[in-house]
Amino acid sequence: MLKVALLGAGRIAQVHAKHIQDHPDTVLFSVSDMFPAAASALAEKYQARVLAVEEAINHPEVDVVLVATSTDTHADFSLLAARAGKAIFCEKPIDLNIERVKACVAEVKKLGVPFMIGFNRRFDPNHAHLNRALRSGEIGDLEHLQICSRDPSPLPDDYLLASGGMFRDMTIHDFDMARFQLGEEPVAVSAVAAALVSPTVKAAGDVDTAVITLQTASGKIAVINNSRRSGYGYDQRIEAHGQKGCLYVHNVPTTTLVKVTEEGGAQAQKPLHFFLERYQEAFSAQWKAFVAALKGNQPMPTSADDGLKALLLAEAAVESLKTQKVVQINLNEV
Amino acid sequence: MLKVALLGAGRIAQVHAKHIQDHPDTVLFSVSDMFPAAASALAEKYQARVLAVEEAINHPEVDVVLVATSTDTHADFSLLAARAGKAIFCEKPIDLNIERVKACVAEVKKLGVPFMIGFNRRFDPNHAHLNRALRSGEIGDLEHLQICSRDPSPLPDDYLLASGGMFRDMTIHDFDMARFQLGEEPVAVSAVAAALVSPTVKAAGDVDTAVITLQTASGKIAVINNSRRSGYGYDQRIEAHGQKGCLYVHNVPTTTLVKVTEEGGAQAQKPLHFFLERYQEAFSAQWKAFVAALKGNQPMPTSADDGLKALLLAEAAVESLKTQKVVQINLNEV
Amino acid sequence: MLKVALLGAGRIAQVHAKHIQDHPDTVLFSVSDMFPAAASALAEKYQARVLAVEEAINHPEVDVVLVATSTDTHADFSLLAARAGKAIFCEKPIDLNIERVKACVAEVKKLGVPFMIGFNRRFDPNHAHLNRALRSGEIGDLEHLQICSRDPSPLPDDYLLASGGMFRDMTIHDFDMARFQLGEEPVAVSAVAAALVSPTVKAAGDVDTAVITLQTASGKIAVINNSRRSGYGYDQRIEAHGQKGCLYVHNVPTTTLVKVTEEGGAQAQKPLHFFLERYQEAFSAQWKAFVAALKGNQPMPTSADDGLKALLLAEAAVESLKTQKVVQINLNEV
Amino acid sequence: MLKVALLGAGRIAQVHAKHIQDHPDTVLFSVSDMFPAAASALAEKYQARVLAVEEAINHPEVDVVLVATSTDTHADFSLLAARAGKAIFCEKPIDLNIERVKACVAEVKKLGVPFMIGFNRRFDPNHAHLNRALRSGEIGDLEHLQICSRDPSPLPDDYLLASGGMFRDMTIHDFDMARFQLGEEPVAVSAVAAALVSPTVKAAGDVDTAVITLQTASGKIAVINNSRRSGYGYDQRIEAHGQKGCLYVHNVPTTTLVKVTEEGGAQAQKPLHFFLERYQEAFSAQWKAFVAALKGNQPMPTSADDGLKALLLAEAAVESLKTQKVVQINLNEV
Repeated sequence: MLKVALLGAGRIAQVHAKHIQDHPDTVLFSVSDMFPAAASALAEKYQARVLAVEEAINHPEVDVVLVATSTDTHADFSLLAARAGKAIFCEKPIDLNIERVKACVAEVKKLGVPFMIGFNRRFDPNHAHLNRALRSGEIGDLEHLQICSRDPSPLPDDYLLASGGMFRDMTIHDFDMARFQLGEEPVAVSAVAAALVSPTVKAAGDVDTAVITLQTASGKIAVINNSRRSGYGYDQRIEAHGQKGCLYVHNVPTTTLVKVTEEGGAQAQKPLHFFLERYQEAFSAQWKAFVAALKGNQPMPTSADDGLKALLLAEAAVESLKTQKVVQINLNEV
Repeated sequence: MLKVALLGAGRIAQVHAKHIQDHPDTVLFSVSDMFPAAASALAEKYQARVLAVEEAINHPEVDVVLVATSTDTHADFSLLAARAGKAIFCEKPIDLNIERVKACVAEVKKLGVPFMIGFNRRFDPNHAHLNRALRSGEIGDLEHLQICSRDPSPLPDDYLLASGGMFRDMTIHDFDMARFQLGEEPVAVSAVAAALVSPTVKAAGDVDTAVITLQTASGKIAVINNSRRSGYGYDQRIEAHGQKGCLYVHNVPTTTLVKVTEEGGAQAQKPLHFFLERYQEAFSAQWKAFVAALKGNQPMPTSADDGLKALLLAEAAVESLKTQKVVQINLNEV
Repeated sequence: MLKVALLGAGRIAQVHAKHIQDHPDTVLFSVSDMFPAAASALAEKYQARVLAVEEAINHPEVDVVLVATSTDTHADFSLLAARAGKAIFCEKPIDLNIERVKACVAEVKKLGVPFMIGFNRRFDPNHAHLNRALRSGEIGDLEHLQICSRDPSPLPDDYLLASGGMFRDMTIHDFDMARFQLGEEPVAVSAVAAALVSPTVKAAGDVDTAVITLQTASGKIAVINNSRRSGYGYDQRIEAHGQKGCLYVHNVPTTTLVKVTEEGGAQAQKPLHFFLERYQEAFSAQWKAFVAALKGNQPMPTSADDGLKALLLAEAAVESLKTQKVVQINLNEV
Repeated sequence: MLKVALLGAGRIAQVHAKHIQDHPDTVLFSVSDMFPAAASALAEKYQARVLAVEEAINHPEVDVVLVATSTDTHADFSLLAARAGKAIFCEKPIDLNIERVKACVAEVKKLGVPFMIGFNRRFDPNHAHLNRALRSGEIGDLEHLQICSRDPSPLPDDYLLASGGMFRDMTIHDFDMARFQLGEEPVAVSAVAAALVSPTVKAAGDVDTAVITLQTASGKIAVINNSRRSGYGYDQRIEAHGQKGCLYVHNVPTTTLVKVTEEGGAQAQKPLHFFLERYQEAFSAQWKAFVAALKGNQPMPTSADDGLKALLLAEAAVESLKTQKVVQINLNEV
C-alpha cells in the first residue's frame, strides 16, 4: 500500500484525495495546506492526518508526494520531494517561468525519482480512444489535427490576472494534447489572438480568443482554437484527418435525452459543464496510470519533459503573437 | 414521347404535371378537372389543352391516363381508361369501399392494361435505400420493423370527415411500406388506438393516434405508429432490426445547420414539413419508374394488387380495433 | 451508519456490495451465499463477515437486508427479513408465481417494514431525465410511449429455461419503465411475439422477439419491443410523443469517438455492452435513493406493489399471446 | 424572357444550361465552345443554336453572357461582353493574374454592366441559413469562424498543374465564404501548409494540405483548413462561434439511412460525393439570384469586387507561406 502525502486541499486536491482513496494500492496518508481548516476538513473525511508541508514530504512512511498546491509552489515542493527521494505526482504547470521549469526538471531527472505531470486529458476515455486509433493506423498517416478547447465562462478576474496568460494557463493543456495526438514534435508555432470576451483580460494585455497553429517536421499541421467563454459548457473536441479518413472526439452530453418540438429539431443536452464533470473519469484513470507505472518500474506516462515542452510551446506562441511571425522551435533537444 | 392525360388539377396533380413535363419521354397532353379554372391554369402553365374527362380518356393521341382526382372517382376513371386501352397511373387509394376496389382490380387485370398505384414513399431515396439494404441481406433476416408516421398537424375537418378513417386514409401508406420492407405478407393484424388529438375525429368515432401490429407467417413483426399531429413536422422514420443489426431511416432536416447555445445542446433543424417537401424526390422517382416499366414492358413497381392489399390490411385493422382481437388475413389469395 | 446484510454473492450482489461500501451512510456487514467460497471472497474484499442467511437476517446489528440471491428465494428471504423487522431491498422479481408474490407483498405491507424492489432502470440518469421532463410537461400530455429493450445476445440456455419466460424475466423491466413514464396505469395489454433467435427458447415454447402494447384509461398507448439478441450491444432506448413534441432517450456509446472513412459516413462507437455497463450509475443512484428514503422515513421510490404490478402486466401479456385478444387489467385495485 | 449566350460546354456549363432552361424567365439562346462537337451536343439538348464566341457575345438578341470557359479566357470574354453592353455571369476566378483581374474589374465597373461572379457556395441552403442566423444575431457577435473544405480526392495532375496553386484555385471559394460569413473584411492573413497528398503537387512546389488564418480589424478570427483529398467525399463544413453560442453547418449525407451492427455503432451514409452533388441546389439558387437582381435592377449578390478580393486573399496567403509572416491586407480600398 503506497502512502500518499497530499499537498493542497483545494478543489483539485479534493479530486485527487478521492481517487487515492478509491485505489486499492494507495492510501491518503496526510494533507497539507496553507489554510489549516481546509487541510483538516479533507484529512478528516478520509481519516488522514494533517501535516506541515516539509514534515509530510520528509515523513519516512510517505511513498508519494502529490503536489496540488498553488502554481508558484509546484517547482519548490517538487524539488523538496525529489531530494527526499519520494515519487512525485505534480499538477501542471511546473512553473510559469521557463527557467525555473528547466532547472527543476533537470534536478528531478538527476535525482532519478519517478515524476509525473498532471495532464489529465490524455486519460479521458474519448481522447485516449482517439490516440489508440491514431497509433494503430486507423486513418493512416495523420495530416491535420484540430483541437477545440473552450471554457464555459471566464474564470474569476483574480485567477485570470495571476494565470500567466491564456497560452501558459489554458492552452498548455492543448499543447500537450497536440503533442500526444500528433506523435511527433512540432517545429513551428504561429498564433493569432484577440481579447473579445473579458475586459479584464483586455486591460491586462492578455487574450481570451486564439488560434494557434503548429507544424511538425514532416508537415503535419495542428490547429488549436481557444476561448475563455463558450456560453454552452465545456467545449472539448478533437478532429484528426489522415490519409484514410477522419476521426472525431465529440463532447459528452449531460444525458442522452433529445427533444424535438415545434420550436426546433432534435435538440441534445448541453455538454458536461466543466473539467470536473468532463474529466472525472480522466482524473481517476490518470491516478491508476501513475500507480501502475510506479509499481511496474515503468516510465511515467507524462514526464517532467512533457511539462517543459508544453510550456516551451506556450512561450513560442507568445513570441509569435508579438512578432507576427512563425516561431521555430526544437523540442527534441530539450 | 408518351402523351399523358392528367385527370385532376389540385395539389397532387400539380406535382405530377411538373414531373411529367420534366421527364424526357413524357409530355402533358391534357388536363381535366371539375373546376374549369383550375384545369385551365395548370394546362396553360405547361402548354397543354383542357379536355373533359371522357374526352381525354378516349382521345386517340393519349397514351397514359393519370388519375389524380378526388378519391371517389378513382375507380370509375381507372375503369374508363382501362376500357379505352390506356396505361394508367392512379393515385392511392383505388376506392374506400373494398368491394369496389376488388371489382375494379379484377377488371383492370382482365383488360391487361398497365396499371400503377401511387405509393410514392417506396421511391423516397431513404426508404428505397433501406429496401435495397434489407434485400441484399445487410442485417440478415429481418425480425422487427417499426414505422413511425406522423402528420405535422391534423388536416382540415372536412378532409378528415371524408377520409374514410385514419387506417384507410393515412395508415394505408404505412401498410404498403410494411409490405414493401417486410418482403413477406402479413397474416395477422392487431390495432390499438385512440382519439387524443382532434375533437372532430373523436366526435366522428374515428381515431387519430394508433399502433398497428402486423405479423408474417415466419414470425416477423411490424409495428406502425401513427398520429395526426406531431407538432414538429412530418415524422417519417423506419427502424428495421434483424439477425445482424439494425437499420434506421431518419427524418430529413430542412438544412444541416445545428445550433448550440446556453439554452441547450446541439439543436438540429426541424424535419421537412410535410409530404410535398419530404417526398418531392419520391414523386419524381415514382414517375420515372412508371415510365421505365411502361417502356420496358415490365411489371409495374406498385400494382393494383398492392393497392388492394393495403386496403385489406386497413380493413383488418378496423376490425381488430372493434373486436379487440388479432385478425387473421390471407393476402396471398388476393 | 446502516449495517447491511447482503444475501447473495453473485454478479449483481457484487455490484451492490460496491455501492453499499461507497455510500457514506452504509457499510457491508455480512455476506451470505449458498457457495461459501463466493461469500468469503466478496466478504474479504470489503472486510465484512460471512454469515448463514438466517443468522444474517436475525443479527441484531443488521439494519438492512439486501436480497440478491436466486429468484426462487426472493420471497422467502424477504419475508424472513420482514418478520425480523429489517428494512429490505429486494432484487426483482419477488417471485415468478403471482400468488406467492401477492402473499409476500401482503405480509410485507402488514408488517410495515420499508421494502424497495430493484427496478434499477428508473435511476438511469437518461431515463430519470426523461421522467422529469414528462412530469414537468415539456411535451404536454403524453400520447405514445415506445420502449426498445434488446439484450446484446441470448443469455445461457440454463438461464433462459429457468427464467420464467421472456415476459416475466426480461419484459418485466420494461413493464415497470412503461408505468414509470406513463404516469398512469395500463388497463389493456396485447402481445405479439415469436421465437426467431434461440432454438432453445423455441423448443421450450417461449418467445425471444416480442411487441407488447399497453393502453391506459385515457387512451395513452405504450409499445414495448424486445429481443433477446441485438448483435450490437444493449439497446435501451425510449421515445415519448406528446401534445407538444417528442422526447428520446438514446443509447450511450462507449466513447464519443466517431470515424469517417472511405467505407462509410460518420460511425459512432457501439452502445455500452450490457446492463453492468449501461446501468452502472443507475445501480449507484438506486442505492442512494433507497438510503435516502430509509433515513428520511419517506415512501420507497419503488415499492412492493411496483414489483407486483409489473408481474401482473407480464401475466396479462402471456394471456394475450395465448388468447390472441386484448386483455383487460385493473392495477388500481392491487 | 432573357436570352443567354453560354460560353463553354463542359461540365459546369452543362449545369448552368439546365438551370437557365429550368428558370421561367431565361432561355438558352446559344452555346459556344472551342470543341464544336461539345457545343452542338449541349445546344441540341436544349434546342439552342451553336455560335462562335464573338458572334454570340455581339448577337443583338442576347441579353446575358454566361462565361463558363477555361479560366484563362474569363477576363477577355467578360470584357468583350461588357463592351457589348451585356449582363455577365462569370465563373470564378476572373483570372489567376491579379493585375489582369484588377484591370478587368475596373473596366467592367466603368462600363456599368451587371456582373456577377460565380461563388456558388453562398447559395447552398445550409451555408445561406448560417449566414441569415449570423446576420440576425442568433449567436451575438461572431468571434471565431472555422471552414473545413476538402475535396474527395486530388483532381487530375493536368488540372492541378494548371490550377494556379491550391490557394488561388481551391481556397478561393473558402476566402469568399469567410468574407461572406464574417461580415467584415480580413486585415491579416497567415498560412501554414504542406504537400502531403499528391507527389505531383509536391514536385510542382505547390501544397495540398493547408491551414489559413484570417483576422479582421475587430479581432474576429477565421480559420480555413483545406485538403485535396478527404477519402470519404466532399467535406464542406463550417463552425461559427460567437458571444451566445455556436452554429455548425454539417455535411449532407447521401441518404438518412443509418446502420448499427456488431462491427460498430450508428453509421451514417457518406457525405455527398463532390460539388455537383452537394451544390446542386446552390447552382440553381445562384442563377435565380442573378436573374432576380438583373430584373430588379439590384446590385449583384456577388460582385466583380468579390472576385478580386478573394484573389487578393489568396495572394496574401501565398506571400505568408513564403515569408513565414502574417501579411497585412486592406480590402476596403479595393
